[in-house]
Amino acid sequence: MSLVGADRVPRGDRAARLAWARLVEPGDPESARLVAAVGAEAALHGIDPASSLGQQVAPRLADLDVERDVRIAASLGARLVVPDDDEWPPGLDVLTNPPFCLWVRGPLHLAEACERSVGVVGARAASGYGLHQAKELAAGLAERGYTIVSGAAYGIDGAAHEGALAVDGRTIAVVAGGVDRPYPAGHAGLLARVAESGAVLSEVPPGSSPTRWRFLSRNRMIATMSRGTVVVEAGLRSGSRNTARTAADHLRVVCAVPGPVSSAVSAGCHLLIREGAQLVTDAAEVVEAVGPIGELAPVKRGGVLPEDDLEPIHRAVLSALRVQSATSVGALAKQCGASLRDVMGALGVLGVNDLVVQDGDGYRRVRRRPSDRPASQRSAT
Amino acid sequence: MSLVGADRVPRGDRAARLAWARLVEPGDPESARLVAAVGAEAALHGIDPASSLGQQVAPRLADLDVERDVRIAASLGARLVVPDDDEWPPGLDVLTNPPFCLWVRGPLHLAEACERSVGVVGARAASGYGLHQAKELAAGLAERGYTIVSGAAYGIDGAAHEGALAVDGRTIAVVAGGVDRPYPAGHAGLLARVAESGAVLSEVPPGSSPTRWRFLSRNRMIATMSRGTVVVEAGLRSGSRNTARTAADHLRVVCAVPGPVSSAVSAGCHLLIREGAQLVTDAAEVVEAVGPIGELAPVKRGGVLPEDDLEPIHRAVLSALRVQSATSVGALAKQCGASLRDVMGALGVLGVNDLVVQDGDGYRRVRRRPSDRPASQRSAT
Repeated sequence: MSLVGADRVPRGDRAARLAWARLVEPGDPESARLVAAVGAEAALHGIDPASSLGQQVAPRLADLDVERDVRIAASLGARLVVPDDDEWPPGLDVLTNPPFCLWVRGPLHLAEACERSVGVVGARAASGYGLHQAKELAAGLAERGYTIVSGAAYGIDGAAHEGALAVDGRTIAVVAGGVDRPYPAGHAGLLARVAESGAVLSEVPPGSSPTRWRFLSRNRMIATMSRGTVVVEAGLRSGSRNTARTAADHLRVVCAVPGPVSSAVSAGCHLLIREGAQLVTDAAEVVEAVGPIGELAPVKRGGVLPEDDLEPIHRAVLSALRVQSATSVGALAKQCGASLRDVMGALGVLGVNDLVVQDGDGYRRVRRRPSDRPASQRSAT
Repeated sequence: MSLVGADRVPRGDRAARLAWARLVEPGDPESARLVAAVGAEAALHGIDPASSLGQQVAPRLADLDVERDVRIAASLGARLVVPDDDEWPPGLDVLTNPPFCLWVRGPLHLAEACERSVGVVGARAASGYGLHQAKELAAGLAERGYTIVSGAAYGIDGAAHEGALAVDGRTIAVVAGGVDRPYPAGHAGLLARVAESGAVLSEVPPGSSPTRWRFLSRNRMIATMSRGTVVVEAGLRSGSRNTARTAADHLRVVCAVPGPVSSAVSAGCHLLIREGAQLVTDAAEVVEAVGPIGELAPVKRGGVLPEDDLEPIHRAVLSALRVQSATSVGALAKQCGASLRDVMGALGVLGVNDLVVQDGDGYRRVRRRPSDRPASQRSAT
């Protein structure tokens, strides 16, 4: 005997998946195994009332009404996306207990948007520093064509969405409750703006409240939908570290932004880096980490000085010279511990590069600004 | 024919090394090769006046007076240490061009002090954050019996010495000029205090001024004398990164302290970490990195909550309960997507752990402070 009769749910995979999303919590292992084995529809109609799964879904069975759910979604302007759909984000398929379906509001084609995407997540109780970095990072990534995936929470999540929106970039909010339930309430406006140009999505049906368990389940979607996750600020106990762990478990790149060691909301980031996450300081470094091979961030280096490309003896002679007064070749040789011949050779090279001038019996240094770079362009000695 | 006659320099390795230190600059490769091959004394008396080395040392030969140098050192209370001496720091021997000898002021036995030692170095133009961290880190390491090796420069170096001195710890200042030439002048007092309980040492003879080249040479000593180097703050162009590179080249541990990504003096640290340096946030983590195997830093974690050690279903039921009002078993089952039996089982475990109480037909949550930890100690379900 079947618990869910064919009369309770319309035919087809789509309706069956919607029913599963109503009957069990996100990430429920037993139902996921069954659906993976025989498909959503056969699994649903095959539930044995006497089995543990049967007893598990029984309390919710009375409220099951797939057709009502379809009507509600339509009235909210939310579409139902299932694995067979074009826009199903392939990253979700790596999960052991993937979502049965997604409710989505917003114009973005999910699969396309996730092709170049980064999760940007972090603490709710973020610092001003963290908020600024999240916004900058998200804006920089969005400008480079990356979709910013985050959870619309206060703090880092919100700043990440804002950063993407500020540069007219693409962003996806993965929420823990129903897509009709703006949470936190203070982010209702932000979520509306995300839904306008990007996407707000959830694996739980409209009307569902966000629970602690659903927040954790939501995190696994952010972690695997995108190519990598950046944690901007996180305490030692944090959902963001949980997201990062899921990302790493599924071979996604995990990046973390460092901060002052005295900041409690950077402690989680520092721990992640110590455990193997990539330290990143800007969008270019994130792209290098998550992007296709070959997208390298410019290696950071300081200003260039004229003597940078000189050989040691030339550099030693140069730094022994003064700008104001001349020094003799003999004094230079003593000071540098070099032969007269080597000192004269060095003075020749330095002269050709306009770094020194002769002055009476000795030589003086010519003061130059770093940007002039004559030595690096001309010295090939 | 020999350039340096036996009449010019007293017999013995010690005098010969002192002469070499006068004749060539620190790290000079040709003389180092020769001394390594035939010993300091034979090398000195064997210099061919026509050779390139002969021409190199010629300008300084007139001023060579080993006996005067010995008298000067004695008058300064500085001792000469050579590789044959007990206290010669073995770490220096890994260098291709090691110092010929060291001038040392201060009571520390160098070799013993370096057995447990860490180089703590960084930017001159350090931030308040960096100075604070350097001092804290050095104090913490000194308290754990580590000698702090640094360069006595303004900024991080000075703060590192101060941190060690503040807890009556051991510290060594490796200076780029002669040990009689306090540099920078503003650190004369600090250097005097280091010499009182620790050691101030140099590979260049008394009277020598610190030159750019000697600063770089000095860095290689800090890098190899100690078991590892911690860079607290460093710009992208910096002597500290040079020290770190030398340390890594000689298989020493390199650690770096992170900071705000917006801080130019943390940029060098972040680059080092990206290149493989160990991110550290406190002294315990430095000890774990540089100390003998087994000295592990306590893994950082946040506060502990009663539900930390519970199984998912127990946790789900717990977080579905309210403190103020009771919830029925049926409502809990619906909310958690679980069977009535599983919910009742969970309520039993939670009750045993004093986390829930029955209240009429339903259950309420008991509010507890994290420190109570009843669940973690009792639940073995």
